Amino acid sequence: MDTRLRQQIAFILEMDRLKAVLRQNLTPSAQRRENTAEHSWHLAIMGLVLEDQSPTPVDRAKVLCMLLLHDVVEIDAGDTFAYDDSGHADKIEREKQAADRLFGLLPKDQAHELRTIWDEFEAGKSPEARLARALDRLQPILMNHRSGAMSSWAKHGISKGQVLSRNREVEALSPALWALLTKCCNDAVAEGFLKP
Amino acid sequence: MDTRLRQQIAFILEMDRLKAVLRQNLTPSAQRRENTAEHSWHLAIMGLVLEDQSPTPVDRAKVLCMLLLHDVVEIDAGDTFAYDDSGHADKIEREKQAADRLFGLLPKDQAHELRTIWDEFEAGKSPEARLARALDRLQPILMNHRSGAMSSWAKHGISKGQVLSRNREVEALSPALWALLTKCCNDAVAEGFLKP
Repeated sequence: MDTRLRQQIAFILEMDRLKAVLRQNLTPSAQRRENTAEHSWHLAIMGLVLEDQSPTPVDRAKVLCMLLLHDVVEIDAGDTFAYDDSGHADKIEREKQAADRLFGLLPKDQAHELRTIWDEFEAGKSPEARLARALDRLQPILMNHRSGAMSSWAKHGISKGQVLSRNREVEALSPALWALLTKCCNDAVAEGFLKP
Repeated sequence: MDTRLRQQIAFILEMDRLKAVLRQNLTPSAQRRENTAEHSWHLAIMGLVLEDQSPTPVDRAKVLCMLLLHDVVEIDAGDTFAYDDSGHADKIEREKQAADRLFGLLPKDQAHELRTIWDEFEAGKSPEARLARALDRLQPILMNHRSGAMSSWAKHGISKGQVLSRNREVEALSPALWALLTKCCNDAVAEGFLKP
C-alpha cells in the first residue's frame, strides 16, 4: 500500500471513533442518546434538503463537507453540552488541537483542504458556514421537540429563554426556520418539558 | 409553516429512523452493531477522502449525495445481510417501494432530484455510482477486519471466497483498493476469523 493510501485509511479508521461519542439529546426513533456520527449524517441530509433556506446561493459540496466534518474534533475533545458554560471556556483550544491531530493523519494536500473547510465552518462567515451552523443549531431542537419528557431539555431543566438566546444564528439565517424553532419551543413549554 | 417547509421537515424527521436500523457488522470503536445512519456518514467521509481512487474524475457533491442517501430505503425495507441470498431475492422490489414512499415525502422537485440520484447509485453505471458502490463494499470490510473475533465474518462463518466474489466491484474500480481488501481478507484468515 503506498503512503498516500495508508494515510487516507488511517484517517478513515480513526473516524470510526466518532460513533462512540455520545451527545446529550436523544434520537427519538432509536430512543437512546444520539452519537455524533449519526448526528453529522442527519445534518448533511438537512443541508441537502434545506439548502434553499439560505438567503444566498451555496456550494452544495462545501455545505455537505462542512456538515460531515464539523464535529470530528469531538473524537479527541468530546461533546460539549450546549448549555455547559464551563465546558465552553476551553472548547475552542481543545478542538483546535484535535483538528491539528486528526486532519494531520491525512496526506498534506487533503489535510490542508479539509482543515480549511473546518476552519471556515468555525469562522461562520461564508454563506455555506452560516447555513451549516444554523442547521447544526436546529437539528437538536427537532430531536428534543420529538423526545418530549425524555428530552435533554427536561433532563437538564433548560428554559425557553436559554434555547432562544443560544440559537440566534437560526434567526439571522432564515425567518422560516426561526419560526419553526420558536414553535418547537412553544410546544415544549405547553407540554411541560421546557421551562417557560 | 408553508407547505414546502412542512414537507421538508417531515422527510427530515422520518430520516431519524435510519439510526435505529442495525447492520450485521460492528463498529470496532463503539463495540456494538453499527447502524445505517452512522455507516452512511462514514461512507461519505470515505467518498471525500478516497475520491482520487476513481479512474475518472467525479462530481463530489453527487458522490456525497449518493452515499448519504443510498441506504435510506432501509427505513422501510430493513438491512439485508450481504451473504443472505434469500433476503436478496425481493430486495430490489422492497427497496423501490421504500424509495417511492420516502422521497415522496419531499416537495416534488426535490423528490425527483433525490430519487434520480438514488436510482443512479442503484444502476451503478456513472463514475460517481461506481466509486460510491465500491466504497459501500469496502467500508464493512474495514470494520470487520478491525473487529476480529467479534466480526460478522466470524459470527456467520463467512469464507474468503465469499467475500472476494461478493466484492468484485472494488476490483473493477481500483487496483489499490482491491489490494487493500484482499490484504484485509488474508489477515483475517491468518488470524482465524475468516474461513480460508
